[in-house]
Amino acid sequence: MLVDARDDRTSAYRVDLELTPEQSDRFKKQIEFILEIDKLKRIRRKTVLLDRSQQENSAEHSWHIAITVFILSEYANGENIDVCRVIKMLLVHDLVEIDAGDTYCYDEHGRENQPQREENAAERIFGILPADQAADLRALWDEFERRETSESKLANALDRFQPFLHNYFTEGQTWQENDIKSSQVNARMQPVSDGAPVLWNYVKTLIEDAVEKGYLLK
Amino acid sequence: MLVDARDDRTSAYRVDLELTPEQSDRFKKQIEFILEIDKLKRIRRKTVLLDRSQQENSAEHSWHIAITVFILSEYANGENIDVCRVIKMLLVHDLVEIDAGDTYCYDEHGRENQPQREENAAERIFGILPADQAADLRALWDEFERRETSESKLANALDRFQPFLHNYFTEGQTWQENDIKSSQVNARMQPVSDGAPVLWNYVKTLIEDAVEKGYLLK
Repeated sequence: MLVDARDDRTSAYRVDLELTPEQSDRFKKQIEFILEIDKLKRIRRKTVLLDRSQQENSAEHSWHIAITVFILSEYANGENIDVCRVIKMLLVHDLVEIDAGDTYCYDEHGRENQPQREENAAERIFGILPADQAADLRALWDEFERRETSESKLANALDRFQPFLHNYFTEGQTWQENDIKSSQVNARMQPVSDGAPVLWNYVKTLIEDAVEKGYLLK
Repeated sequence: MLVDARDDRTSAYRVDLELTPEQSDRFKKQIEFILEIDKLKRIRRKTVLLDRSQQENSAEHSWHIAITVFILSEYANGENIDVCRVIKMLLVHDLVEIDAGDTYCYDEHGRENQPQREENAAERIFGILPADQAADLRALWDEFERRETSESKLANALDRFQPFLHNYFTEGQTWQENDIKSSQVNARMQPVSDGAPVLWNYVKTLIEDAVEKGYLLK
Protein backbone atom coordinates (compact mmCIF):
# COMPACT_ATOMS: atom_id res chain seq x y z
CA MET A 1 0.00 0.00 0.00
CA LEU A 2 2.81 2.29 0.92
CA VAL A 3 4.62 1.44 -2.29
CA ASP A 4 1.49 2.05 -4.33
CA ALA A 5 1.28 5.53 -2.90
CA ARG A 6 4.74 6.51 -4.08
CA ASP A 7 3.71 7.98 -7.40
CA ASP A 8 1.25 10.23 -5.67
CA ARG A 9 3.86 11.27 -3.19
CA THR A 10 6.35 12.11 -5.87
CA SER A 11 3.89 14.35 -7.62
CA ALA A 12 3.18 16.11 -4.34
CA TYR A 13 6.86 16.70 -3.78
CA ARG A 14 7.21 18.34 -7.15
CA VAL A 15 5.05 21.24 -6.11
CA ASP A 16 6.98 24.38 -5.21
CA LEU A 17 7.75 24.56 -1.50
CA GLU A 18 9.84 27.68 -1.81
CA LEU A 19 12.92 25.54 -1.25
CA THR A 20 16.10 25.29 -3.30
CA PRO A 21 16.56 21.96 -5.12
CA GLU A 22 19.00 20.85 -2.41
CA GLN A 23 16.61 21.78 0.37
CA SER A 24 13.78 20.11 -1.46
CA ASP A 25 15.81 16.91 -1.84
CA ARG A 26 16.60 16.98 1.87
CA PHE A 27 12.96 17.52 2.77
CA LYS A 28 11.82 14.63 0.55
CA LYS A 29 14.19 12.26 2.30
CA GLN A 30 12.98 13.41 5.69
CA ILE A 31 9.33 12.85 4.79
CA GLU A 32 10.15 9.47 3.24
CA PHE A 33 11.79 8.41 6.51
CA ILE A 34 8.86 9.60 8.63
CA LEU A 35 6.48 7.58 6.45
CA GLU A 36 8.76 4.53 6.46
CA ILE A 37 9.03 4.21 10.23
CA ASP A 38 5.26 3.91 10.55
CA LYS A 39 5.90 0.22 9.86
CA LEU A 40 7.34 -0.26 13.35
CA LYS A 41 3.75 -0.13 14.61
CA ARG A 42 3.14 -3.47 12.89
CA ILE A 43 6.11 -5.32 14.45
CA ARG A 44 4.65 -7.55 17.15
CA ARG A 45 6.68 -8.47 20.19
CA LYS A 46 6.21 -11.52 22.43
CA THR A 47 5.31 -9.27 25.37
CA VAL A 48 1.61 -8.84 26.06
CA LEU A 49 -0.06 -5.65 27.26
CA LEU A 50 -0.93 -5.57 30.96
CA ASP A 51 -4.63 -6.10 30.21
CA ARG A 52 -3.56 -9.17 28.18
CA SER A 53 -5.70 -8.02 25.25
CA GLN A 54 -2.92 -8.33 22.70
CA GLN A 55 0.80 -8.45 22.05
CA GLU A 56 2.68 -5.20 22.29
CA ASN A 57 4.26 -3.73 19.16
CA SER A 58 7.73 -2.21 18.96
CA ALA A 59 6.56 1.38 18.53
CA GLU A 60 4.47 1.23 21.72
CA HIS A 61 7.34 -0.43 23.56
CA SER A 62 9.74 2.32 22.42
CA TRP A 63 7.35 5.01 23.64
CA HIS A 64 6.86 3.30 26.97
CA ILE A 65 10.54 2.95 27.80
CA ALA A 66 11.33 6.47 26.57
CA ILE A 67 8.90 7.87 29.16
CA THR A 68 10.31 5.51 31.76
CA VAL A 69 13.62 7.38 31.49
CA PHE A 70 12.04 10.45 33.13
CA ILE A 71 10.78 8.35 35.98
CA LEU A 72 13.66 5.98 36.70
CA SER A 73 16.86 7.76 35.59
CA GLU A 74 17.64 8.57 39.23
CA TYR A 75 18.54 4.90 39.67
CA ALA A 76 21.16 4.92 36.90
CA ASN A 77 24.58 3.52 37.61
CA GLY A 78 26.67 6.59 36.92
CA GLU A 79 26.41 10.31 37.52
CA ASN A 80 25.60 13.18 35.17
CA ILE A 81 23.64 10.95 32.84
CA ASP A 82 22.52 12.77 29.69
CA VAL A 83 18.84 11.85 29.99
CA CYS A 84 18.03 13.30 26.61
CA ARG A 85 20.48 11.00 24.87
CA VAL A 86 19.01 7.99 26.65
CA ILE A 87 15.53 8.98 25.45
CA LYS A 88 16.73 9.45 21.87
CA MET A 89 18.51 6.09 21.92
CA LEU A 90 15.37 4.35 23.09
CA LEU A 91 13.19 6.04 20.47
CA VAL A 92 15.38 4.70 17.64
CA HIS A 93 16.71 1.45 19.15
CA ASP A 94 14.12 -0.86 17.56
CA LEU A 95 13.81 0.75 14.09
CA VAL A 96 15.91 -2.03 12.57
CA GLU A 97 13.08 -4.43 13.37
CA ILE A 98 11.13 -2.98 10.45
CA ASP A 99 13.32 -5.20 8.26
CA ALA A 100 14.83 -7.64 10.75
CA GLY A 101 11.68 -8.39 12.78
CA ASP A 102 11.52 -8.79 16.53
CA THR A 103 13.64 -11.74 17.62
CA TYR A 104 12.34 -13.41 20.77
CA CYS A 105 15.07 -13.03 23.35
CA TYR A 106 14.99 -16.72 24.30
CA ASP A 107 15.01 -17.96 20.69
CA GLU A 108 18.63 -19.15 20.35
CA HIS A 109 18.17 -20.16 16.72
CA GLY A 110 16.60 -16.85 15.66
CA ARG A 111 19.36 -14.94 17.40
CA GLU A 112 22.15 -16.56 15.38
CA ASN A 113 21.88 -14.31 12.34
CA GLN A 114 20.24 -11.40 14.16
CA PRO A 115 23.32 -9.11 14.11
CA GLN A 116 23.71 -9.36 10.33
CA ARG A 117 19.99 -8.86 9.69
CA GLU A 118 19.94 -5.82 11.94
CA GLU A 119 23.10 -4.38 10.41
CA ASN A 120 21.56 -4.57 6.93
CA ALA A 121 18.36 -3.03 8.25
CA ALA A 122 20.25 -0.15 9.84
CA GLU A 123 22.02 0.57 6.55
CA ARG A 124 18.77 0.72 4.63
CA ILE A 125 16.50 2.46 7.12
CA PHE A 126 18.81 5.17 8.46
CA GLY A 127 20.08 5.53 4.89
CA ILE A 128 16.73 6.96 3.82
CA LEU A 129 17.61 10.16 5.70
CA PRO A 130 19.92 12.98 4.57
CA ALA A 131 23.51 11.91 5.32
CA ASP A 132 24.00 14.06 8.45
CA GLN A 133 20.80 12.83 10.09
CA ALA A 134 21.45 9.24 9.01
CA ALA A 135 24.83 9.44 10.76
CA ASP A 136 23.29 10.93 13.93
CA LEU A 137 20.64 8.24 14.27
CA ARG A 138 23.03 5.49 13.33
CA ALA A 139 25.44 6.69 16.03
CA LEU A 140 22.66 6.49 18.62
CA TRP A 141 21.81 2.95 17.53
CA ASP A 142 25.48 1.90 17.61
CA GLU A 143 25.91 3.40 21.06
CA PHE A 144 22.85 1.51 22.30
CA GLU A 145 24.09 -1.78 20.84
CA ARG A 146 27.64 -1.43 22.21
CA ARG A 147 26.50 -0.82 25.82
CA GLU A 148 29.68 0.99 26.79
CA THR A 149 28.53 4.45 27.90
CA SER A 150 26.51 5.09 31.08
CA GLU A 151 23.67 6.34 28.88
CA SER A 152 23.54 3.19 26.80
CA LYS A 153 23.74 1.03 29.92
CA LEU A 154 20.70 2.77 31.37
CA ALA A 155 18.90 2.51 28.02
CA ASN A 156 19.57 -1.23 27.85
CA ALA A 157 18.50 -1.68 31.47
CA LEU A 158 15.13 -0.04 30.78
CA ASP A 159 14.71 -1.97 27.52
CA ARG A 160 14.91 -5.20 29.58
CA PHE A 161 13.07 -3.94 32.64
CA GLN A 162 9.77 -2.92 31.00
CA PRO A 163 8.98 -6.28 29.32
CA PHE A 164 10.03 -7.97 32.56
CA LEU A 165 7.38 -5.97 34.43
CA HIS A 166 4.82 -6.96 31.80
CA ASN A 167 5.72 -10.59 32.21
CA TYR A 168 5.52 -10.49 35.96
CA PHE A 169 2.26 -8.54 36.12
CA THR A 170 0.53 -10.80 33.61
CA GLU A 171 1.34 -13.79 35.82
CA GLY A 172 4.20 -14.76 33.53
CA GLN A 173 1.98 -15.28 30.51
CA THR A 174 4.78 -15.27 27.93
CA TRP A 175 7.15 -17.12 30.26
CA GLN A 176 4.61 -19.87 30.76
CA GLU A 177 3.78 -20.18 27.07
CA ASN A 178 7.46 -20.66 26.32
CA ASP A 179 8.52 -22.78 29.34
CA ILE A 180 11.04 -20.18 30.44
CA LYS A 181 13.25 -20.87 33.47
CA SER A 182 14.31 -18.38 36.12
CA SER A 183 17.97 -18.84 35.14
CA GLN A 184 17.14 -17.64 31.62
CA VAL A 185 15.39 -14.53 32.92
CA ASN A 186 18.22 -13.94 35.34
CA ALA A 187 20.77 -13.99 32.51
CA ARG A 188 18.58 -11.86 30.27
CA MET A 189 18.29 -9.21 33.00
CA GLN A 190 22.04 -8.74 33.51
CA PRO A 191 21.98 -5.34 31.73
CA VAL A 192 19.64 -4.16 34.50
CA SER A 193 22.28 -5.08 37.06
CA ASP A 194 24.81 -3.14 35.00
CA GLY A 195 22.71 -0.07 34.29
CA ALA A 196 20.48 0.38 37.34
CA PRO A 197 21.36 -1.58 40.51
CA VAL A 198 18.22 -0.60 42.47
CA LEU A 199 16.06 -1.94 39.66
CA TRP A 200 18.13 -5.09 39.67
CA ASN A 201 17.31 -5.70 43.35
CA TYR A 202 13.66 -5.34 42.46
CA VAL A 203 14.02 -7.72 39.50
CA LYS A 204 15.65 -10.39 41.67
CA THR A 205 12.83 -10.08 44.18
CA LEU A 206 10.18 -10.49 41.50
CA ILE A 207 11.98 -13.45 39.88
CA GLU A 208 11.95 -15.29 43.20
CA ASP A 209 8.31 -14.41 43.69
CA ALA A 210 7.48 -15.51 40.13
CA VAL A 211 9.03 -18.93 40.75
CA GLU A 212 7.09 -19.25 44.00
CA LYS A 213 3.83 -18.36 42.27
CA GLY A 214 4.48 -20.71 39.36
CA TYR A 215 4.81 -17.95 36.70
CA LEU A 216 8.33 -19.11 35.91
CA LEU A 217 10.09 -22.50 36.04
CA LYS A 218 12.76 -22.83 38.72
CA MET B 1 -7.21 -7.15 34.85
CA LEU B 2 -4.79 -4.51 36.02
CA VAL B 3 -6.91 -3.90 39.08
CA ASP B 4 -7.08 -7.63 39.83
CA ALA B 5 -3.29 -7.77 39.82
CA ARG B 6 -2.94 -5.14 42.54
CA ASP B 7 -2.87 -7.55 45.45
CA ASP B 8 -0.03 -9.44 43.85
CA ARG B 9 1.82 -6.24 43.17
CA THR B 10 1.43 -5.04 46.71
CA SER B 11 2.89 -8.23 48.04
CA ALA B 12 5.80 -7.89 45.66
CA TYR B 13 6.45 -4.36 46.84
CA ARG B 14 6.61 -5.49 50.42
CA VAL B 15 9.80 -7.42 49.82
CA ASP B 16 12.94 -5.68 51.03
CA LEU B 17 14.59 -3.65 48.27
CA GLU B 18 17.28 -2.25 50.52
CA LEU B 19 15.48 1.08 50.43
CA THR B 20 14.35 3.28 53.31
CA PRO B 21 10.57 3.44 53.79
CA GLU B 22 10.52 6.84 52.02
CA GLN B 23 12.54 5.54 49.09
CA SER B 24 10.38 2.46 48.92
CA ASP B 25 7.21 4.58 48.85
CA ARG B 26 8.69 6.69 46.04
CA PHE B 27 9.66 3.60 44.07
CA LYS B 28 6.18 2.06 44.43
CA LYS B 29 4.59 5.20 42.99
CA GLN B 30 7.01 5.19 40.08
CA ILE B 31 6.27 1.56 39.23
CA GLU B 32 2.53 2.16 39.60
CA PHE B 33 2.76 5.02 37.09
CA ILE B 34 4.78 2.95 34.61
CA LEU B 35 2.16 0.20 34.77
CA GLU B 36 -0.74 2.67 34.52
CA ILE B 37 0.44 4.36 31.32
CA ASP B 38 0.40 1.02 29.49
CA LYS B 39 -3.30 1.81 28.96
CA LEU B 40 -2.42 4.49 26.38
CA LYS B 41 -1.68 1.63 23.96
CA ARG B 42 -5.41 0.85 23.95
CA ILE B 43 -6.61 4.37 23.10
CA ARG B 44 -7.57 4.30 19.44
CA ARG B 45 -7.32 7.41 17.32
CA LYS B 46 -9.23 8.18 14.12
CA THR B 47 -5.99 8.16 12.13
CA VAL B 48 -5.21 4.95 10.27
CA LEU B 49 -1.74 3.47 9.78
CA LEU B 50 -0.22 4.03 6.36
CA ASP B 51 -0.86 0.40 5.35
CA ARG B 52 -4.51 1.01 6.33
CA SER B 53 -4.52 -2.18 8.42
CA GLN B 54 -5.89 -0.53 11.55
CA GLN B 55 -6.37 2.67 13.49
CA GLU B 56 -3.36 4.10 15.21
CA ASN B 57 -3.25 4.22 19.00
CA SER B 58 -2.07 7.16 21.06
CA ALA B 59 1.12 5.50 22.31
CA GLU B 60 2.29 4.77 18.75
CA HIS B 61 1.38 8.29 17.70
CA SER B 62 3.39 9.74 20.59
CA TRP B 63 6.42 7.67 19.66
CA HIS B 64 6.15 8.66 16.00
CA ILE B 65 6.03 12.40 16.61
CA ALA B 66 8.77 12.23 19.25
CA ILE B 67 11.14 10.79 16.63
CA THR B 68 9.93 13.33 14.12
CA VAL B 69 11.42 16.06 16.31
CA PHE B 70 14.95 14.84 15.44
CA ILE B 71 14.16 14.99 11.78
CA LEU B 72 12.17 18.21 11.41
CA SER B 73 13.26 20.51 14.25
CA GLU B 74 15.40 22.48 11.77
CA TYR B 75 12.14 23.92 10.39
CA ALA B 76 11.03 25.30 13.76
CA ASN B 77 9.88 28.89 13.97
CA GLY B 78 12.38 30.17 16.50
CA GLU B 79 16.04 29.69 17.25
CA ASN B 80 17.80 27.73 19.97
CA ILE B 81 14.91 25.34 20.37
CA ASP B 82 15.40 22.92 23.27
CA VAL B 83 14.80 19.76 21.25
CA CYS B 84 14.85 17.59 24.33
CA ARG B 85 11.97 19.48 25.91
CA VAL B 86 9.95 19.15 22.71
CA ILE B 87 10.50 15.39 22.75
CA LYS B 88 9.52 15.11 26.41
CA MET B 89 6.38 17.17 25.82
CA LEU B 90 5.33 14.92 22.98
CA LEU B 91 5.95 11.75 24.97
CA VAL B 92 3.54 12.89 27.71
CA HIS B 93 1.09 15.06 25.76
CA ASP B 94 -1.57 12.36 25.25
CA LEU B 95 -1.41 10.61 28.63
CA VAL B 96 -4.64 12.32 29.71
CA GLU B 97 -6.45 10.30 27.04
CA ILE B 98 -6.17 7.24 29.29
CA ASP B 99 -9.14 8.71 31.18
CA ALA B 100 -10.48 11.33 28.76
CA GLY B 101 -10.27 9.27 25.56
CA ASP B 102 -9.19 10.56 22.18
CA THR B 103 -11.55 13.28 20.97
CA TYR B 104 -11.81 13.44 17.19
CA CYS B 105 -10.56 16.84 16.18
CA TYR B 106 -13.59 17.59 14.01
CA ASP B 107 -16.14 16.41 16.61
CA GLU B 108 -17.46 19.78 17.87
CA HIS B 109 -19.78 18.13 20.39
CA GLY B 110 -17.10 15.89 21.88
CA ARG B 111 -14.74 18.84 22.20
CA GLU B 112 -17.10 20.85 24.38
CA ASN B 113 -16.23 19.22 27.68
CA GLN B 114 -12.79 18.04 26.59
CA PRO B 115 -10.81 20.57 28.68
CA GLN B 116 -12.51 19.55 31.93
CA ARG B 117 -12.19 15.84 31.19
CA GLU B 118 -8.50 16.26 30.41
CA GLU B 119 -7.88 18.42 33.46
CA ASN B 120 -9.36 15.74 35.73
CA ALA B 121 -7.32 13.09 33.94
CA ALA B 122 -4.10 15.07 34.39
CA GLU B 123 -4.77 15.40 38.12
CA ARG B 124 -5.27 11.67 38.54
CA ILE B 125 -2.63 10.30 36.20
CA PHE B 126 0.31 12.59 36.96
CA GLY B 127 -0.79 12.40 40.61
CA ILE B 128 0.22 8.74 40.74
CA LEU B 129 3.87 9.85 40.68
CA PRO B 130 5.95 11.23 43.57
CA ALA B 131 5.14 14.95 43.93
CA ASP B 132 8.32 16.29 42.27
CA GLN B 133 7.93 14.10 39.19
CA ALA B 134 4.18 14.74 39.03
CA ALA B 135 4.92 18.47 38.94
CA ASP B 136 7.58 18.05 36.21
CA LEU B 137 5.33 16.05 33.90
CA ARG B 138 2.34 18.25 34.61
CA ALA B 139 4.43 21.31 33.70
CA LEU B 140 5.34 19.72 30.36
CA TRP B 141 1.68 18.98 29.65
CA ASP B 142 0.62 22.51 30.61
CA GLU B 143 3.33 24.00 28.41
CA PHE B 144 2.15 21.88 25.48
CA GLU B 145 -1.47 22.88 25.99
CA ARG B 146 -0.74 26.61 26.34
CA ARG B 147 1.25 26.83 23.07
CA GLU B 148 3.20 29.90 24.14
CA THR B 149 6.85 28.82 24.04
CA SER B 150 8.73 28.05 20.80
CA GLU B 151 9.13 24.47 22.02
CA SER B 152 5.42 23.98 22.57
CA LYS B 153 4.64 25.56 19.22
CA LEU B 154 6.91 23.09 17.46
CA ALA B 155 5.42 20.23 19.50
CA ASN B 156 1.90 21.24 18.52
CA ALA B 157 2.92 21.64 14.88
CA LEU B 158 4.28 18.08 14.76
CA ASP B 159 1.26 16.73 16.63
CA ARG B 160 -0.93 18.06 13.79
CA PHE B 161 1.48 17.35 10.95
CA GLN B 162 1.89 13.59 11.44
CA PRO B 163 -1.84 12.63 11.31
CA PHE B 164 -2.18 15.01 8.36
CA LEU B 165 0.50 13.01 6.49
CA HIS B 166 -1.36 9.80 7.35
CA ASN B 167 -4.58 11.22 6.01
CA TYR B 168 -3.02 12.41 2.80
CA PHE B 169 -1.04 9.23 2.12
CA THR B 170 -4.05 6.98 2.74
CA GLU B 171 -5.98 8.91 0.08
CA GLY B 172 -7.85 10.82 2.77
CA GLN B 173 -9.43 7.72 4.26
CA THR B 174 -10.52 9.34 7.53
CA TRP B 175 -11.41 12.61 5.80
CA GLN B 176 -13.64 10.79 3.37
CA GLU B 177 -15.33 8.69 6.07
CA ASN B 178 -16.21 11.86 7.95
CA ASP B 179 -17.01 14.21 5.03
CA ILE B 180 -14.27 16.63 6.02
CA LYS B 181 -13.82 19.87 4.07
CA SER B 182 -10.53 21.52 3.16
CA SER B 183 -11.46 24.58 5.25
CA GLN B 184 -11.69 22.38 8.33
CA VAL B 185 -8.27 20.86 7.71
CA ASN B 186 -6.87 24.29 6.98
CA ALA B 187 -8.10 25.61 10.34
CA ARG B 188 -6.92 22.49 12.17
CA MET B 189 -3.42 22.93 10.72
CA GLN B 190 -2.92 26.51 11.92
CA PRO B 191 -0.48 25.39 14.65
CA VAL B 192 1.77 24.11 11.85
CA SER B 193 1.82 27.60 10.37
CA ASP B 194 2.72 28.93 13.80
CA GLY B 195 5.36 26.38 14.73
CA ALA B 196 7.03 25.39 11.45
CA PRO B 197 6.42 27.61 8.39
CA VAL B 198 8.18 25.32 5.88
CA LEU B 199 5.93 22.46 6.92
CA TRP B 200 2.95 24.76 6.55
CA ASN B 201 3.86 25.44 2.91
CA TYR B 202 3.96 21.70 2.36
CA VAL B 203 0.61 21.22 4.13
CA LYS B 204 -1.06 23.85 1.95
CA THR B 205 0.29 22.13 -1.16
CA LEU B 206 -1.03 18.76 -0.06
CA ILE B 207 -4.44 20.17 0.91
CA GLU B 208 -4.85 21.60 -2.59
CA ASP B 209 -3.72 18.33 -4.08
CA ALA B 210 -6.08 16.37 -1.81
CA VAL B 211 -9.05 18.43 -2.99
CA GLU B 212 -8.02 17.89 -6.61
CA LYS B 213 -7.75 14.13 -6.09
CA GLY B 214 -11.06 13.95 -4.22
CA TYR B 215 -9.59 12.94 -0.86
CA LEU B 216 -11.08 16.02 0.75
CA LEU B 217 -14.22 18.10 0.07
CA LYS B 218 -13.58 21.58 -1.26
